[in-house]
Amino acid sequence: MAENNNKKQRVYLFDTTLRDGQQTPGVDFSVDDKIAVADMLDAFGLDYIEGGYPGANPTDTDFFAKKRTQKAKFVAFGMTKRAGVSASNDPGLAALIASNSDAVCFVAKAWDYHVRVALGCSNDENLENITQSVQATVKAGKEAYVDCEHFFDGYKANPDYAISCAKTAYDAGARWVVLCDTNGGTQPDEVRNIVKEVIAAGIDGHRLGIHAHNDTEQAVANSLAAVDAGARQIQGTLNGLGERCGNANLITLIATLALKDKWSARFETGITEEKLSELTHLSRSFDELLNRAPASQSPYVGASAFATKAGIHASALLKDPATYEHVEPDRIGNTRRVMVSDQGGKSNFLNVLARHGINVRKDDSRLDTLIAIVKEREASGYSYEGADASFELLARRTLGEVPTFFSVDSYRIGVERRHNASGQLITVSEGVVKVTVDGVQHMSVSEGHGPVNALDLALRKDLGKYQAEIQDLELVDYKVRILNGGTEAITRVLIESTDVSGKRWWTVGVSDNIIDASFIALMDSITFKLLKNRGTAGLSAAE
Amino acid sequence: MAENNNKKQRVYLFDTTLRDGQQTPGVDFSVDDKIAVADMLDAFGLDYIEGGYPGANPTDTDFFAKKRTQKAKFVAFGMTKRAGVSASNDPGLAALIASNSDAVCFVAKAWDYHVRVALGCSNDENLENITQSVQATVKAGKEAYVDCEHFFDGYKANPDYAISCAKTAYDAGARWVVLCDTNGGTQPDEVRNIVKEVIAAGIDGHRLGIHAHNDTEQAVANSLAAVDAGARQIQGTLNGLGERCGNANLITLIATLALKDKWSARFETGITEEKLSELTHLSRSFDELLNRAPASQSPYVGASAFATKAGIHASALLKDPATYEHVEPDRIGNTRRVMVSDQGGKSNFLNVLARHGINVRKDDSRLDTLIAIVKEREASGYSYEGADASFELLARRTLGEVPTFFSVDSYRIGVERRHNASGQLITVSEGVVKVTVDGVQHMSVSEGHGPVNALDLALRKDLGKYQAEIQDLELVDYKVRILNGGTEAITRVLIESTDVSGKRWWTVGVSDNIIDASFIALMDSITFKLLKNRGTAGLSAAE
Repeated sequence: MAENNNKKQRVYLFDTTLRDGQQTPGVDFSVDDKIAVADMLDAFGLDYIEGGYPGANPTDTDFFAKKRTQKAKFVAFGMTKRAGVSASNDPGLAALIASNSDAVCFVAKAWDYHVRVALGCSNDENLENITQSVQATVKAGKEAYVDCEHFFDGYKANPDYAISCAKTAYDAGARWVVLCDTNGGTQPDEVRNIVKEVIAAGIDGHRLGIHAHNDTEQAVANSLAAVDAGARQIQGTLNGLGERCGNANLITLIATLALKDKWSARFETGITEEKLSELTHLSRSFDELLNRAPASQSPYVGASAFATKAGIHASALLKDPATYEHVEPDRIGNTRRVMVSDQGGKSNFLNVLARHGINVRKDDSRLDTLIAIVKEREASGYSYEGADASFELLARRTLGEVPTFFSVDSYRIGVERRHNASGQLITVSEGVVKVTVDGVQHMSVSEGHGPVNALDLALRKDLGKYQAEIQDLELVDYKVRILNGGTEAITRVLIESTDVSGKRWWTVGVSDNIIDASFIALMDSITFKLLKNRGTAGLSAAE
Repeated sequence: MAENNNKKQRVYLFDTTLRDGQQTPGVDFSVDDKIAVADMLDAFGLDYIEGGYPGANPTDTDFFAKKRTQKAKFVAFGMTKRAGVSASNDPGLAALIASNSDAVCFVAKAWDYHVRVALGCSNDENLENITQSVQATVKAGKEAYVDCEHFFDGYKANPDYAISCAKTAYDAGARWVVLCDTNGGTQPDEVRNIVKEVIAAGIDGHRLGIHAHNDTEQAVANSLAAVDAGARQIQGTLNGLGERCGNANLITLIATLALKDKWSARFETGITEEKLSELTHLSRSFDELLNRAPASQSPYVGASAFATKAGIHASALLKDPATYEHVEPDRIGNTRRVMVSDQGGKSNFLNVLARHGINVRKDDSRLDTLIAIVKEREASGYSYEGADASFELLARRTLGEVPTFFSVDSYRIGVERRHNASGQLITVSEGVVKVTVDGVQHMSVSEGHGPVNALDLALRKDLGKYQAEIQDLELVDYKVRILNGGTEAITRVLIESTDVSGKRWWTVGVSDNIIDASFIALMDSITFKLLKNRGTAGLSAAE
């Protein structure tokens, strides 16, 4: 990534979003989710992708039905063989080795207390389980890694035994021996000193990894302290997902290793400059998949990470950003935001409009009107950040360019739960829409899966002379965010659409009525499609 | 706070929530907000509360109309006097000194580049401004502090000048000289080394502070590195509020300094054990004031900070929490949570059932039935980890204990968007519900904000003899998650309810119809409430 590559040491990135990240309260990946996340990670250039624990639950078993990565090593996680059975007679171990993974990452206790209490076996049996599990895996032609669980707490309680566990894994042929701060309370200096001790005990740092948790908000610092002390693999997750307070945040670590001199002068990862510039996109896409709002204050990738509203800083910032920003936002695909209601804000708007192919003069009063409308809508719950098409429509309408292709005179939705003729309890949703096109009213009715689907189907059933044009319009995603509490809450609906051209666009609707919010977003999607067909919208480079 | 107080060094906590925290995008404190936050901080035992910049804006000027703290030093923030005027002729400086504060914290440039470009004065003039501002403040009987802005970047560019700035402030009599990582990109080892250099240059560490930002997710680590190197004041904010990625999180720092041996053995703060046990409350109350949901993964104080859903961990955790938790949740007023999920094993289930006051033998076949049902439902989109009440109902039903208080024979929801008599476009939602209680059918109709609200209101309008019992039932939160794409998607609804007892419970519903999903969750909420009134549900300790 820089000129003197030869002198740099390679640090390997091991993603456990799909395994430890799955322990996050509120997170529940489906097999499709896992496939999507593995694709993102693989394309981005992560070295290792841990997919889950095949055999432990149906989702993970299905996910490991085939190999899910192209470039990254695809890793199955699981326990070492049990005490009292041989490696060849342990069905759990056999399933791990037989799974469609490139490697198996074993979790092994490294704190003698846990060996006794949780495993109920002797210290020596635990070591023997590590040896046999690693050897059986290697013999089967796969790489074996060992996560030494509770390593740091175990080291404090019994350093000799903790080191024995790591050394046993190492000697048995584990490609990576990973020191885990399972409870997350270890401080960076402790991590640094203990990693040094482990290396001094004869384990090559190039086969040593760190697995940190964020329970004292220092998972990133702990990971870097371990690298500083000689470890060469970092385990972490996208956006710091993970059990309790989360794992080390790989997004932050990727950026820091690449962009902060202290690290980039000595180390390199497998992430190219080009991929690095997609880091913000990666982080936000993952939040989208989790259907949660990206944290605006996230380091490097948050919407506020390069934002300032301080008057004194804001004007100086624009003179010379480099002295007010610790890194250039472009490097990770983020953007600078100056939140002042003056020329800075206005030129920001002009840039966004230009990106949509809309050119307007800075002193055009319609620009002030547009800014005022956007501010007012955002105050009422709209967010145009994720809804480019709705923003473009609003801008074109305010600048007086959008024809009224059709109008919806009224709609009516009914949802009924009742017993049918056979006595079964059924729920039927029906939508009726009256649309006027060129003075002619078209009335359509449709049933659907739920009220929004019924409305959608009825609305797109008969648009008169435009109907043929929207046949290829497809709604690919529908997201709902409740903006405040209670069943009378304000609802924001975000719809993603596409057509045969492959282009995707996003529209938004906000209302205290989820049907109305959906209706607004659907109308924008259809109108955008019609404009796009005419080549008068959707001109931006971004998809 | 511990036995050998005499040997411990005092670390002082300086809160800048009301000053640097106010730079957070989306945060805008009113004077009343500031008064409330200052009260919280003062009562908690913070040493210094920086309230803002009197004279810079009307809010801060009003806030400094009187002294706002009882115990903590009340600090006004502002710039040193300008070059070219004497201290006695600078109205900004005069206003700061005249404000109703105990102390003034001056921000002073410590990077020669910024002295030249942003201030437009000479390096010596900048030093002279520091000296005169500090001296004038001390002469007026107030303490003076100096925030050395851009100190670490400035030190890298010109170490002699950066140190001169700090030394000038120190020699002029500043009680605290604070080294600021203004751009937030400095790494912990750099902070440690530079703080050592500053102390070596003749500045007593007992008058040295650290002000860190979280741009590489290491504000906490940087603050602690500075303390380790000899600094004795930490500036930070509640929940890490602040410009861009935020300031150092004082909540995390307070807990870490008090509870992690590495720090508590050597240092003490002004926070008592008793106040420490209110830390979770402090953090969440502050989020309440900001009207935002507390981050569940926050270290120490988040709802997930002591939560686990891992089967293998969950069973061991309950045997001996100390070996699975880096600190006791009670110490900071937080609680342990063990959650049911796809991930959990049988002992996990038994523990969760026991926590709900449901005792069942491990070999009871109904337990296997329950586990099978939960797994099947989770596969179809249910998630019980956030829906304790629905889980308890399902468990009690499977174990055959829940009476049918009432049944809903049918419901019907209509949503209509049309022009009203005055020609305005309106959307009306109406719900009709037929309920049978003791063989008597009750039919209710209600309008609402959207279809779900209409259904909710109609459902709770007339439950016959149970109606009086549910008058205090209140729905406090309603969340929707779309589990897959398109408007025909599977929808998961999560409802949070409460009543006069203050207890809160969560229920869940899943369907391809959002109305049905909401209906299922509403039914569970009402049924749970009725059971709870009878003392036959909701027996768990956790709220």
